[in-house]
Amino acid sequence: MSLIIIGSVALDDIETPFGKVEKIVGGAAPFACLAASYFYDKVKIVAIVGGDFPKSEIDIWKAHQIDIAGLQIAEEEKSFHWSGKYHIDMNSRDTLKTGLNVLESFDPIIPDSYQDCEFLLLANLTPQTQQTAIKRLQKRPKLIVLDTMNFWMDVALNDLIETIKLVDVLTINDAEARQLSGEYSLVKAAKKILKMGPNYLIIKKGEHGALLFHEEQVFSAPALPLAEVFDPTGAGDTFAGGFIGYLAKVGTINFHNMKNAVVYGSALASFCVEKFGTERIKNLKSAEIAERVQEFVNLSSFNIEN
Amino acid sequence: MSLIIIGSVALDDIETPFGKVEKIVGGAAPFACLAASYFYDKVKIVAIVGGDFPKSEIDIWKAHQIDIAGLQIAEEEKSFHWSGKYHIDMNSRDTLKTGLNVLESFDPIIPDSYQDCEFLLLANLTPQTQQTAIKRLQKRPKLIVLDTMNFWMDVALNDLIETIKLVDVLTINDAEARQLSGEYSLVKAAKKILKMGPNYLIIKKGEHGALLFHEEQVFSAPALPLAEVFDPTGAGDTFAGGFIGYLAKVGTINFHNMKNAVVYGSALASFCVEKFGTERIKNLKSAEIAERVQEFVNLSSFNIEN
Repeated sequence: MSLIIIGSVALDDIETPFGKVEKIVGGAAPFACLAASYFYDKVKIVAIVGGDFPKSEIDIWKAHQIDIAGLQIAEEEKSFHWSGKYHIDMNSRDTLKTGLNVLESFDPIIPDSYQDCEFLLLANLTPQTQQTAIKRLQKRPKLIVLDTMNFWMDVALNDLIETIKLVDVLTINDAEARQLSGEYSLVKAAKKILKMGPNYLIIKKGEHGALLFHEEQVFSAPALPLAEVFDPTGAGDTFAGGFIGYLAKVGTINFHNMKNAVVYGSALASFCVEKFGTERIKNLKSAEIAERVQEFVNLSSFNIEN
Repeated sequence: MSLIIIGSVALDDIETPFGKVEKIVGGAAPFACLAASYFYDKVKIVAIVGGDFPKSEIDIWKAHQIDIAGLQIAEEEKSFHWSGKYHIDMNSRDTLKTGLNVLESFDPIIPDSYQDCEFLLLANLTPQTQQTAIKRLQKRPKLIVLDTMNFWMDVALNDLIETIKLVDVLTINDAEARQLSGEYSLVKAAKKILKMGPNYLIIKKGEHGALLFHEEQVFSAPALPLAEVFDPTGAGDTFAGGFIGYLAKVGTINFHNMKNAVVYGSALASFCVEKFGTERIKNLKSAEIAERVQEFVNLSSFNIEN
């Protein structure tokens, strides 16, 4: 039994109102794998990096018990590179430069030792590559979670729709839910998207929390009101990793566990934004996570006797 | 013991993507009074209307046990008039025309029979008039709630700041909290605003719910995800009325009751947007309210054993 996480690994240049960093580790997979590792000790990465990728970072993944048998290192090539600048509100950003590099010809090879996969997170990547990963698993995992973004709706919508058909859970943000469905109301958007394949839909609303839709049920998870958002990069990937990591730990898929998974994912994401890149989620203590989750409980609990 | 609600009463022309209505009853006080009346039977209105205001509407207020001794009818004049058009997203609107009419010289006379006031809602109105109402009460109410809007921040900021000093609870939306404090982070905004006078701050976020701040505590109330918002006019006023009506009913002011009051206010507001104007909140059954509140409970509850 294991949890496979496939996604991009990047070296990012990031500028926020708080500062500027260069060649910091980013991409979907590092955030998601690290987040998941706090709940589950059989996290296996499928990804590709270039020769410029710091070995020290890979050592940290190993220290988190992340299996790197599926990590391809193209020594002669450069890692995927993303450069972006956040606006003052931290909710919007401009992509300044994208260098696909190793991602351009990435073939997601699944090591034999990964074939015991029960949980699969398709973190942000081309829908075509996500689909290939699903097809290379000899046994269909118990749960497939797909995280994607508006970029793929713009450039590879048909591939994305085909991939969405194959998964159990889709996580996107509110603008993406509207784009994908053509509906402004998130309730109507969710109804349409749930007909496209997934059983569960998570709509991430950043500082406004997240909505989980399943059949006729809805769960609204709060976001922790934060005084400072230092760097939002990777918050969505961290959410997805924490979410599936928690589910892999509890093992049973039902609405009750899904709700808790959304809260754990949100708690991990609230740590992520406190520092640049993966800095904060590389160094979490389980007591800190428990305390943060308790903050979510306190934040949203009320007691009405009707 | 009673609950005084002072606010505008209007005849509105409203255009939404769903249709257009003319001379429909609006303004802050009708929404707030009707909402409060479902929780508390000693609601007393202070407001002014012109001779053109439908007597049938006043009869409905009376049927809701709303005391109209403080309602001035200027038979020779015209009621306050507002005309607005909602955009397709229903979150933004244009004011097409405002006719102050009777509001221009409104002097908020407090009848002697109102001097037993324990709860006071200053629904949306000029800050100067709100202040006058406070000063005319011989005994300071147990709880004063102030609802206001960006318009007064633009044209009467100093008056507004003086009024804010005198109240216990301030309710504004997120954009207004940012405008009033000059802080983008709502946590920082709340800290600043709580230093301006009120003990409690409610930041309304429309479809994203509401945040209640008090000292170091925060409560995040969800909004009911709605398939259709028919007419958002008056949702904030309805929230404020439901909020203070519930508190007047339970009588005791503490964070626990405040949280529940936010949920009841949100529940009433979720009915308000289902029809044009006050149409929906004129005709609520207590079973419907209990059911709607239960939806809020279901929507936001989760159970984590840490």
